[in-house]
Amino acid sequence: MAASTSSAQPFAGSAAALPAEGGAAAAAGAGTSAAFHPSVAAAAARVEYLRPVPSDIAISQAVEPLPISEVAAAAGITPEELEPHGSYQAKVSLGVLERLRDAPMGHYVVVAGINPTALGEGKSTTTLGLVQGLSAHLGRKAFACIRQPSQGPTFGIKGGAAGGGYAQVVPMEAFNLHGTGDIHAITAANNLLAAAIDTRIFHEGTQRDARLFERLTTFKDNTRGFAPVQVRRLVKLGIVPEGTTDPADCPAPAELSPEDQARFARLDIDPATITWRRVVDTCDRHLRGITVGTGPKEVKGVPRETGFDITVASEVMAVLALATSLRDMRERLGSMVVARSRAGLPVTADDLGCGGALAVLMRDAIKPTLMQSLEGSPVMVHAGPFANIAHGNSSIIADQITLRLAGKDGVVVTEAGFGADIGAEKFFNIKCRRSGLRPGACVIVATVRALKTHGGGPPVVPGQPLADEYKTENIPLLEAGCANLAKHVSNVRGFGVRPVVAINRFFTDTDAEVELLRRKALEAGAADAVECTHWSDGGKGCVALGEAVVKACEEARAEAASAEAGAGPFRFLYELDQPVRAKIEAIATRIYGAAAVEYSDLAASQIDEYERLGFGNLPICMAKTHLSLSADPSLKGVPTGFTIRVREVRASVGAGFLYPLLGEIMTIPGLPTRPGFTDVDLDFSAGGSDARIVGLF
Amino acid sequence: MAASTSSAQPFAGSAAALPAEGGAAAAAGAGTSAAFHPSVAAAAARVEYLRPVPSDIAISQAVEPLPISEVAAAAGITPEELEPHGSYQAKVSLGVLERLRDAPMGHYVVVAGINPTALGEGKSTTTLGLVQGLSAHLGRKAFACIRQPSQGPTFGIKGGAAGGGYAQVVPMEAFNLHGTGDIHAITAANNLLAAAIDTRIFHEGTQRDARLFERLTTFKDNTRGFAPVQVRRLVKLGIVPEGTTDPADCPAPAELSPEDQARFARLDIDPATITWRRVVDTCDRHLRGITVGTGPKEVKGVPRETGFDITVASEVMAVLALATSLRDMRERLGSMVVARSRAGLPVTADDLGCGGALAVLMRDAIKPTLMQSLEGSPVMVHAGPFANIAHGNSSIIADQITLRLAGKDGVVVTEAGFGADIGAEKFFNIKCRRSGLRPGACVIVATVRALKTHGGGPPVVPGQPLADEYKTENIPLLEAGCANLAKHVSNVRGFGVRPVVAINRFFTDTDAEVELLRRKALEAGAADAVECTHWSDGGKGCVALGEAVVKACEEARAEAASAEAGAGPFRFLYELDQPVRAKIEAIATRIYGAAAVEYSDLAASQIDEYERLGFGNLPICMAKTHLSLSADPSLKGVPTGFTIRVREVRASVGAGFLYPLLGEIMTIPGLPTRPGFTDVDLDFSAGGSDARIVGLF
Repeated sequence: MAASTSSAQPFAGSAAALPAEGGAAAAAGAGTSAAFHPSVAAAAARVEYLRPVPSDIAISQAVEPLPISEVAAAAGITPEELEPHGSYQAKVSLGVLERLRDAPMGHYVVVAGINPTALGEGKSTTTLGLVQGLSAHLGRKAFACIRQPSQGPTFGIKGGAAGGGYAQVVPMEAFNLHGTGDIHAITAANNLLAAAIDTRIFHEGTQRDARLFERLTTFKDNTRGFAPVQVRRLVKLGIVPEGTTDPADCPAPAELSPEDQARFARLDIDPATITWRRVVDTCDRHLRGITVGTGPKEVKGVPRETGFDITVASEVMAVLALATSLRDMRERLGSMVVARSRAGLPVTADDLGCGGALAVLMRDAIKPTLMQSLEGSPVMVHAGPFANIAHGNSSIIADQITLRLAGKDGVVVTEAGFGADIGAEKFFNIKCRRSGLRPGACVIVATVRALKTHGGGPPVVPGQPLADEYKTENIPLLEAGCANLAKHVSNVRGFGVRPVVAINRFFTDTDAEVELLRRKALEAGAADAVECTHWSDGGKGCVALGEAVVKACEEARAEAASAEAGAGPFRFLYELDQPVRAKIEAIATRIYGAAAVEYSDLAASQIDEYERLGFGNLPICMAKTHLSLSADPSLKGVPTGFTIRVREVRASVGAGFLYPLLGEIMTIPGLPTRPGFTDVDLDFSAGGSDARIVGLF
Repeated sequence: MAASTSSAQPFAGSAAALPAEGGAAAAAGAGTSAAFHPSVAAAAARVEYLRPVPSDIAISQAVEPLPISEVAAAAGITPEELEPHGSYQAKVSLGVLERLRDAPMGHYVVVAGINPTALGEGKSTTTLGLVQGLSAHLGRKAFACIRQPSQGPTFGIKGGAAGGGYAQVVPMEAFNLHGTGDIHAITAANNLLAAAIDTRIFHEGTQRDARLFERLTTFKDNTRGFAPVQVRRLVKLGIVPEGTTDPADCPAPAELSPEDQARFARLDIDPATITWRRVVDTCDRHLRGITVGTGPKEVKGVPRETGFDITVASEVMAVLALATSLRDMRERLGSMVVARSRAGLPVTADDLGCGGALAVLMRDAIKPTLMQSLEGSPVMVHAGPFANIAHGNSSIIADQITLRLAGKDGVVVTEAGFGADIGAEKFFNIKCRRSGLRPGACVIVATVRALKTHGGGPPVVPGQPLADEYKTENIPLLEAGCANLAKHVSNVRGFGVRPVVAINRFFTDTDAEVELLRRKALEAGAADAVECTHWSDGGKGCVALGEAVVKACEEARAEAASAEAGAGPFRFLYELDQPVRAKIEAIATRIYGAAAVEYSDLAASQIDEYERLGFGNLPICMAKTHLSLSADPSLKGVPTGFTIRVREVRASVGAGFLYPLLGEIMTIPGLPTRPGFTDVDLDFSAGGSDARIVGLF
């Protein structure tokens, strides 16, 4: 273990009796650097590491997870802050943030990757393995913060997202299915807003201003007045002064001039400008494009072309991930822009009277869910925004909570979606900017397999056998491919963050290949490069990585302490007040290596429009393939001289970013001929009233 | 209290210290007639009954609910059988049924109503008031079994469904919002099946038989074989013998003849016959009619007209409500018929390879959710099928569990949706037939207001002021209207069940009106008729009703004991082996009072088709308005001489009923100009990290 962490004690691995919950919570929750509860080491000690490594679900079902109350106690969460959902999941109250407001924060580590193959290269698995190594084997108080997966891919091609092998979240069934219902809450909120939009257009189409205004301002008991959400619209229209929030401080509805009544009541949405789509957490390709309102009673209101996205692509999900408090989430949900009026003004959820209801639907979802890894390390599961049209990172709230629970010498490991060119860039420029949190190190996960594709190896296609190049030693391919890794290492250093390369070793990799990869990473400027075998060995396979990461974090902390106040080494790629095009170009040229950026006429007009509407100061969330540093998935290695073409630029005003689309971006996957659900069933062979889930992967 | 219940003790209302959970569970859970835990009476004693009666949400937020573990312990549920979801909701394991397999069951009471006004006449409120009266004031071990409400109406016109006033489920916010996620699970399951249908048609359209078969029988790791769900199709096609379940007992895929490969692989769904629609738990009228598959990549597969229903109208919900075990639910989900092949054969969820995945998605939903009433009585919330196109009753599982927990002298009160002509008829003929459970009494809720509409009073329209007839004494209107009540009393007696009339008194009702109603009920043959004031008084307002109900149940039990074995007084209206038309006619003429039944050509051909396919022996679930005994909502009182016109007959083969449509049935509500969501918001005025929900009703 790292020599400088005096308070971190290695565990004997004994299954010592637990102290009373309150005692453990009080001791561990004080934000000190207390090491983890012995139950974590004991949990790791009870896992049997079999060869060959069984299926993920078999590994998950072979261990009885710890009661979640025990995981929480070890993590320093008090019983009052815990809302159990069954035995192995619990929501954590944001009250932790109040209680530990002044507690020192732990080391903050983000896990990113090189540009992967379509099979994925083990970022989630490495996140879990690293935390297992830190907590169960190095005695650190460590937490993993990961995304809740969409149910769609679980039943489609991809399968679950719990990590894999001996580095996964358990029970993987609960994790991959409903969780504690956050994604379902997002579906409900997103679709309530969608219904509100079409319904409002429908009703505005059949009523004159005065009648519309009267109906909108009449309560169920036939009295008149403004609802709190309507006060926001009165403020926006300048009918009541800025800062008014209480309906009691507003004039009676009848006192408004006919002009103000009309301005208040008629949103006058231009149907062609509606950007809000409905969502479903299912891979349903036939909902990509649909026509709504074809029922006999609605058809008068003119049917409309629209479609569904998968729920995790909803802006509500991005809001959840980027919210810093419940109040912040309420404000952001209300400010989501769904369309423009015929006069060109943005129409928000609050204009539709819907922002409060959305926040109420999401009030439980803002609490992160505590789960555990196979070895008993605490895992915080929260939010799972799409990694292209959104920023692909788990929630700020979960990171805030765990950093305080971890305490000064603890470690929080959070994952950024896709390759480092997208995931880490957005983590730094969007998430860290919003949260104010600063990472001590960035782990870049690399595999021999993926680097060989970057060196010119044949394509890797899911469902088809791997080419021989990936199963036998091939030094030239690997050596050529290491350029891709070097570019990511250099990019991360550009943010003033120390990159640590995790070599996720497969059993087909040779020692010579691993050593070459390691040398290339160090040459590129990595703080360290370490082989890991967590998939087969659990946390033990990540002990060296854990030591390297802690060392990098401690160096970063020392450097920040010696720097001028507020002048730490961390820096953003761009400033928010730069023009939109300058921000896009900074990412394209400096992170991707592009020679130039071109804008379609549509994109150019959208950028001008956003700047006119005051949205120009938002950060940029590029929607790009993760399979290449460029926007063309077939360009491997480190492409140069290419032009990034911005096809369209959309805005998630509530979540707080603009997202340029580089190429076709699919926002709801389809199902293959033989969907993953075919293997999923209940096995009743053990008898009794319950059954075992089989076939999830 | 009832004199004959020797073991039921009135409580002193003291807040006595609780014994340890285990002890309470062991004592109370043994299926004996032990009275309720003192915590229930203590919970009731702490409620303040204010005048005027505040809003539902204000009443709900004024009490701190008991920890759900305490409610469970008092109910006799062991800690191992309880899965807490937060502090005030918990799922209950079906293991209770195994543990108490041989326990004596309590009295079984169903709550139905007269044909109500569009405002509703307080059936849920009476259910909760009655249980509060029985448990907190009469010392009975009593349970309410109610439906989980759809979120759609919560944000639309109707508002929540937690009961009201001092007879409601708390916390009403949790009840009216996500609950423990069962409805979300149904949405997920329903829509996975919908995606499977369109995707299968799409892929069958682009692949020849051999390729299709190869893909369907190739696992992710490129090995070949059949999944367990595919074995069911092999059995159905006669390729392997009846009773085969294990893929290991099947031939290898390549051993099938080309003809059998084609029969297995090609479902050949006729798109025009698809009856499966997608669902959403939102009032979204623009999804009533939609065109799917208009996206650029799907449009080749021919767009298709379809639509969404509200989630509670899904057959998956009906399956949940009528399942008697997890295994039964698995079988029923797999046998749901979604379409026919071009050859006219029914295509099921299992044919699509989807039945197992649906069951896995619903595996937690089959566990009922324990909540509590305002006065601390246990409330089991489970399932909430539409009351017209489905049977509108809460789940069989919840009734089974609570009847055993209640023990011999305990009482389970369950609610049947809509008027007794629909709700109670379906309760007896569909739910009781499936469960084998027999009610001891049927409570018929009646109000002076609704009976006046049946006597010729002016229409009652939501959102419009009530006519004077309903606010002042009007004996002639009421007297004429009591015929509607008399018909329901007579109908219930026809099933061999004792009707007890609950007069849900409003503050505008006069003593003379209440007394007239009471006399008319008794003249019609009610076992008793009792005034109740639970909305303003809580359980105290239902003490007399509780006594009357227990008396009726005890008489029924004595009668059943003295009858020949198997020859109790309870009888069905029809037998399953009667022709479909005879079953429909029995309900129409004997329950509704119709003179005749007419069938459209479509309905006639559908009935013939169902009988040909072997579905003719299913019970009948009439889809009819609840506002009249007839199918015409404007016909009040007891209409005679009318003809019932069956427009169409649909089948829920998995849930197990045929449902004739009598008139237009709306399966997804819309939102009004000013939706209920307008008032819903978070109130941050108390400070801290959380906020209070306002505006739900």
